[in-house]
Amino acid sequence: MNPNNTGTIEINGKEYNTFTEPPVAMAQERAKTSFPVREMTYFLDGGEKNTLKNEQIMEEIERDPLFNNDNYYDLNKEQIRELTMERVAKLSLFVRDQPEDDIKKRFALIGIADMGTYTRLGVHYGLFFGAVRGTGTAEQFGHWISKGAGDLRKFYGCFSMTELGHGSNLAGLETTAIYDEETDEFIINTPHIAATKWWIGGAAHTATHTVVFARLIVKGKDYGVKTFVVQLRNINDHSLKVGISIGDIGKKMGRDGIDNGWIQFTNVRIPRQNLLMKYTKVDREGNVTQPPLAQLTYGSLITGRVSMASDSHQVGKRFITIALRYACIRRQFSTTPGQPETKIIDYPYHQRRLLPLLAYVYALKMTADEVGALFSRTMLKMDDLKPDDKAGLNEVVSDVKELFSVSAGLKAFSTWACADVIDKTRQACGGHGYSGYNGFGQAYADWVVQCTWEGDNNILTLSAGRALIQSAVALRKGEPVGNAVSYLKRYKDLANAKLNGRSLTDPKVLVEAWEVAAGNIINRATDQYEKLIGEGLNADQAFEVLSQQRFQAAKVHTRRHLIAAFFSRIDTEAGEAIKQPLLNLALLFALWSIEEDSGLFLREGFLEPKDIDTVTELVNKYCTTVREEVIGYTDAFNLSDYFINAPIGCYDGDAYRHYFQKVNEQNPARDPRPPYYASTLKPFLFREEEDDDICELDEE
Amino acid sequence: MNPNNTGTIEINGKEYNTFTEPPVAMAQERAKTSFPVREMTYFLDGGEKNTLKNEQIMEEIERDPLFNNDNYYDLNKEQIRELTMERVAKLSLFVRDQPEDDIKKRFALIGIADMGTYTRLGVHYGLFFGAVRGTGTAEQFGHWISKGAGDLRKFYGCFSMTELGHGSNLAGLETTAIYDEETDEFIINTPHIAATKWWIGGAAHTATHTVVFARLIVKGKDYGVKTFVVQLRNINDHSLKVGISIGDIGKKMGRDGIDNGWIQFTNVRIPRQNLLMKYTKVDREGNVTQPPLAQLTYGSLITGRVSMASDSHQVGKRFITIALRYACIRRQFSTTPGQPETKIIDYPYHQRRLLPLLAYVYALKMTADEVGALFSRTMLKMDDLKPDDKAGLNEVVSDVKELFSVSAGLKAFSTWACADVIDKTRQACGGHGYSGYNGFGQAYADWVVQCTWEGDNNILTLSAGRALIQSAVALRKGEPVGNAVSYLKRYKDLANAKLNGRSLTDPKVLVEAWEVAAGNIINRATDQYEKLIGEGLNADQAFEVLSQQRFQAAKVHTRRHLIAAFFSRIDTEAGEAIKQPLLNLALLFALWSIEEDSGLFLREGFLEPKDIDTVTELVNKYCTTVREEVIGYTDAFNLSDYFINAPIGCYDGDAYRHYFQKVNEQNPARDPRPPYYASTLKPFLFREEEDDDICELDEE
Repeated sequence: MNPNNTGTIEINGKEYNTFTEPPVAMAQERAKTSFPVREMTYFLDGGEKNTLKNEQIMEEIERDPLFNNDNYYDLNKEQIRELTMERVAKLSLFVRDQPEDDIKKRFALIGIADMGTYTRLGVHYGLFFGAVRGTGTAEQFGHWISKGAGDLRKFYGCFSMTELGHGSNLAGLETTAIYDEETDEFIINTPHIAATKWWIGGAAHTATHTVVFARLIVKGKDYGVKTFVVQLRNINDHSLKVGISIGDIGKKMGRDGIDNGWIQFTNVRIPRQNLLMKYTKVDREGNVTQPPLAQLTYGSLITGRVSMASDSHQVGKRFITIALRYACIRRQFSTTPGQPETKIIDYPYHQRRLLPLLAYVYALKMTADEVGALFSRTMLKMDDLKPDDKAGLNEVVSDVKELFSVSAGLKAFSTWACADVIDKTRQACGGHGYSGYNGFGQAYADWVVQCTWEGDNNILTLSAGRALIQSAVALRKGEPVGNAVSYLKRYKDLANAKLNGRSLTDPKVLVEAWEVAAGNIINRATDQYEKLIGEGLNADQAFEVLSQQRFQAAKVHTRRHLIAAFFSRIDTEAGEAIKQPLLNLALLFALWSIEEDSGLFLREGFLEPKDIDTVTELVNKYCTTVREEVIGYTDAFNLSDYFINAPIGCYDGDAYRHYFQKVNEQNPARDPRPPYYASTLKPFLFREEEDDDICELDEE
Repeated sequence: MNPNNTGTIEINGKEYNTFTEPPVAMAQERAKTSFPVREMTYFLDGGEKNTLKNEQIMEEIERDPLFNNDNYYDLNKEQIRELTMERVAKLSLFVRDQPEDDIKKRFALIGIADMGTYTRLGVHYGLFFGAVRGTGTAEQFGHWISKGAGDLRKFYGCFSMTELGHGSNLAGLETTAIYDEETDEFIINTPHIAATKWWIGGAAHTATHTVVFARLIVKGKDYGVKTFVVQLRNINDHSLKVGISIGDIGKKMGRDGIDNGWIQFTNVRIPRQNLLMKYTKVDREGNVTQPPLAQLTYGSLITGRVSMASDSHQVGKRFITIALRYACIRRQFSTTPGQPETKIIDYPYHQRRLLPLLAYVYALKMTADEVGALFSRTMLKMDDLKPDDKAGLNEVVSDVKELFSVSAGLKAFSTWACADVIDKTRQACGGHGYSGYNGFGQAYADWVVQCTWEGDNNILTLSAGRALIQSAVALRKGEPVGNAVSYLKRYKDLANAKLNGRSLTDPKVLVEAWEVAAGNIINRATDQYEKLIGEGLNADQAFEVLSQQRFQAAKVHTRRHLIAAFFSRIDTEAGEAIKQPLLNLALLFALWSIEEDSGLFLREGFLEPKDIDTVTELVNKYCTTVREEVIGYTDAFNLSDYFINAPIGCYDGDAYRHYFQKVNEQNPARDPRPPYYASTLKPFLFREEEDDDICELDEE
């Protein structure tokens, strides 16, 4: 007998309880979506062909026993390192045999299921290989391919950039590469412990070779930091080469599957030919030729940034799916006495916690695609460049500059956004978000390094802010600027624009609101910059004074970019059936962004206090609208339960069943006594009092 | 020869490099502090006596081999669980022998060094013991003490509240306790899997007994959720009692030292006397007596909240110390060509990232102390209450209500603030923040459960917001309200107050700014609430509509509380020598808080856009001022290197040396081949091509 009706829910005349209702509730929720989910998936993937290819690759991964992730969250550091190596070995086979676009798709999908494997393979193919291809000559590239760098045969590359004492400031790296004219060699040396190469992924266990960033020194002259290939280990027995010291960096916050290490070079001699000479060249006589445009040298560093924006979407969609599915089956509190508890998705406050993040995850995809395309176009242009094409060179340099600043801001804010999505979705799942088996903890620990590596987010943001001010300066001189900042041309229109009764649900008005805010911030900072220069500061010093303004400028400019790209992509690419559902998300994103930063719009005078009330009402309204089809929006991400890897976020909604089962599979009930019962627990619980021995004195 | 001068720094005519400079730089930084650091420590600790006691306990912990934390970050789940049990056993000895205040100090310090041990012991002494003492009669309490609950002899208690399907809504828990009049027993039962007790700390390995939250059902009537003591395991062999099923919850995001488990009860019979009867009583005939005031029943739940505000300060101070010390020795980029790189603490932007957080950590301590004192006074009053003292009862109920809402908001925002401090300080340490050995990752994973357990932060915030509106309603009816909301009495003054040229560095003006903001938000929400009630909604429904407003109200009200308490404590308790340094922090905190939420002050009309510029300038100014004595401010926290447990945050500043050493101690260099070289890596690197066998057909 159980007279308690707390958990009793009647659906279509049948009674369910807290345990049995969830899958029924999920089916009901799923049925609410009126737009064609499949079409939405095609839109997100960039077409049906991509969706089908993704599905093929997902199936290949899921079915491969090596990629079974059932016990993924219970692996310790040693286990995950070995498994990661096995997975890297398997994946490398695809690199050789498949089209580049398919490889990218596979890596991106692996990046959702197992971030460590993605990175450990990236250490060779992204970093080492990318550096040799990007800064070596064709001859050099061919040489290292012939050694095995192409298909990882008797070869594994890593990337020795960061030092213990230097990270973000590449120009300050202290490892030296001194040219020895007598032997035609470079001597690579670590001058002191703080110049030890640090964090080097692949170094501790795997790498046979590395690209080293070191100061090129010829005839006593320091030419700054260049890249060199150095062999670390003997091929046949994996022992260290003479002069190489390597240690294991050990435990990290996350990504324990990657064998990060430290490397010290003690007078290691390498042939002159190991300097990667696409840009800087040193000949037999020690003549150094520097490239005409240093900017091109580091062009390859942008690759990582661009893919990180895309990764932010990939990982973000996994966690917003989990939290929204859970919200559709979890009930909590009853607002009307005697009535069943309310599904947490139906609380306006819960909607506000999650639905703007859903919109954000969609927005990330729009901009990541757009910037990815810009990147590909620019790289093609660069490859096609004829040596004597001055005009072409200038164009490429200008494109690279634009890409540098756009990708800097985008990398920073999208990786932060994804960290925020993981964190906030975890909290939205209450205690179950803290379980290891729902994946939030592991993913957060794995993810957040994205905010630090390949350009620390704060430094990238400041550098994007610097570029924005430089663009404004250029504009004032009548010079051309890139597409992403072209709105700054309407300087005077922006300065005093107001809403003036126009509709806050008009995409044009919303984009304008952000352009006014960004434009004013950038232009005010530019005024201050020009004033400081006028007072005699150099550019670095003036930018330093304006750091807070640069940060703010980059932040608002990037948000504008995300919003504008979202609306524009809907406009040009979305079919009629999904246009309105997408528009609802884009409007929610733009309006919520205004609400979050309302001070900005009040300050610029674009909005008045009463408009903020309207914004809030509209955010509520679009939350209510989006809530109805929330399972459709997340199903459209098209991730199978394997990639979700969280029982509370399963497709069928049977959350408690899957979760209970998972916990018990991973922790089979055996002995109610812990392994340390005899050694520790029993002696404690059954301890005997030992009295202090007090020698009784006859003190009378 | 190393012609590179990137890392060369001259100090007092002596040359240092990136590796050797840090301790010298730290000594220089330390010398800058002009206020008496020791006096600041006394102020933070609440007097010299407390400081000396803390130091004594710290030494006792540090010297105890069992508390050696050298390999803390490398322990796996099994290892940390066993170690935690050993530490719990050791600590329990102090509980019996020492004054309560010393025990609290010891636990708080352990909470910095090892959060899991703190909690695992708290499962018995805080939760089980607290529940028996708080909701049992004196006789019942004595009984369980006699069984061993006082000194953990043949006894370990846990606390079975949360279920798989119910957490925050206690009233919805589904475990039943049905009274069997024939046998004078309760039958405890888990009706279905979703009602399984879940997350129960101590259940998987340790507990012999538990307090169970279950629905009291007598003669078919459901009296709601009450607490019962149930024995889980036989004492002699730790085997499960009949009808008890227990499983291990397994891997969590953090706090793996705690053996969280699940419990199912299958018709478990317990004597009627095991219902904790301080408030609700059931007699032999099945007559049920309910308490006059249900509020008092859950009074004991506040204990945890109050201590979490204090814990937020404790943990926050550890990480802000690490990041600020590191910022004082790390150099990065040079703003003037040819000059040494700049210390990152000298970048205005870096100051803005960290110094407001330093101020926040100080602010948390002020309010935690104040609310802690209020809590102690109220508990004393409650204990002293005579059964027939109606006036006294009303007073206590009103105090408990105030405490409920104040502690709810404070718990939520201080635990969030601490999570933010750990996260932002990690990012401020760049890549080294991601190393396992600097503690950020472990601490974040361990910490963030504080935002979810003992009242989910979002739900607590909404409940605090609800209480604020209720207070405003009471005020409008002329009823008395608690101290924390007394500013609402100046309703009309607040509504239209403006800065009007007054100084933004006057504490009174700053507190007023926050009172105007909070007052207006609360009063507007109250207007809406009364309107909704007038339209026929019930209170729950009306509050539901106003969830966003409640959140905002609680947020702004709590910030006001932190700011007012900070200024007030300086005013009443700080000696002359530390008054100004404290005031600099408090002003920074108040001004930065305004800047962060500038929309609020513009919207309410308290500030005009130009005032926001002034606020920003003042934040910059106080950052510059506080920066000078930043080592003094953090030294005043008085944490030894043991409690810091992060080589980059060591007292002597010799960050690279300690860090390099730590990494190598924990990962001694041995074989350059990984353990899986023979099994995985070598076969991969040396694999032979296997051609696909194609049967050649004679197709001509």
